[in-house]
Formats: sequence, C-alpha cells, structure tokens
Amino acid sequence: MVDNKNQAIRVDIYGQSYQIKGDASDTHIHDVAKWVDSKMSEIGKRSPNLDHTKVAVLAALNIADELLKVRKELEEIYRMLDEEQPKQL
Amino acid sequence: MVDNKNQAIRVDIYGQSYQIKGDASDTHIHDVAKWVDSKMSEIGKRSPNLDHTKVAVLAALNIADELLKVRKELEEIYRMLDEEQPKQL
Repeated sequence: MVDNKNQAIRVDIYGQSYQIKGDASDTHIHDVAKWVDSKMSEIGKRSPNLDHTKVAVLAALNIADELLKVRKELEEIYRMLDEEQPKQL
Repeated sequence: MVDNKNQAIRVDIYGQSYQIKGDASDTHIHDVAKWVDSKMSEIGKRSPNLDHTKVAVLAALNIADELLKVRKELEEIYRMLDEEQPKQL
C-alpha cells in the first residue's frame, strides 16, 4: 500500500503527519492508519518512557505477530480444504 | 506477544536492541523481529532521508495493511464455508 503510484492521503499517527500513497481506497488507508495510531497509543500509554521509535517498532512487532498467526490459520484452512477435495484419478 | 509474562528475548531491529517478553516460542519471536527488521531496512533503503520513527511507522502501516487484507480473505473463506454447509431444519 505505502509508496505506490496513485492518490496521496494525509493521515495523523501518534502526533505526526504522514503522506500515504497507494492504490487502496481512502477508507482502507484511513482504517490502517487509525489502527497503527491506536496500537501506538496503547503501547505509549503502557510504557510512557519509551521514545517514539521504540513505540512504533513495538507496534510493528505486535501487528507482525498477529499477521503471522492469521497467515498460519489461512494456510491451515487451505490445507484442510485441499485434503477434503475429492481426488481425481 | 509483546509485553507478556514469560520469557524475555533480546532481538535487534534496525540497529536497536529490544527485549521482547511473550509466551510465543523463541523461533516465532525471532521470525517476527526478523520480518520487522527487513521491512524497516527495505523502507530505509528506499527513502534514506526518513528518520527511524517514520521508517518504523511506515513498516507498521505496511504490515497492518497486509494483516487487514489477510483477515478479509479469512472472513471471506469462513463465510463461503458457512454457506456451503448443508442447512439443518
């Protein structure tokens, strides 16, 4: 999504402004930005002494952790669906 | 994963050291950290003038974007599987 060709949208994340270019819809970009912002706010509230970079890296780690889990779930489902397919001779 | 109880693992991400606590396996935590590190390196290489916070936020945005897409795919599959179920009267 980030650094693509089409539109450029301005979003605020954890007090900083970012210009996001992408071919995704405005709604999707805003959803993604809002999510990262709330993740960072949650981490910053829990650990107020962390600098902004660390807050952002911890947010990225949390999101990446979730993504790896969801991907595994997806792979597992595809594997199960594949096994359920009637075999052709 | 981050800020949980059990073990504490030290990982390097984009030149900084982080102590990650979590109940996930060491391998999983290292995989997640390696992924965030490579995402940040990729963004930093493409835009060498960005400060570390922005690089981390853009990495978080990229990963969150991917997570939202995978989640939608998963929801779609569950919806389809649900529709395929024989209906009970």
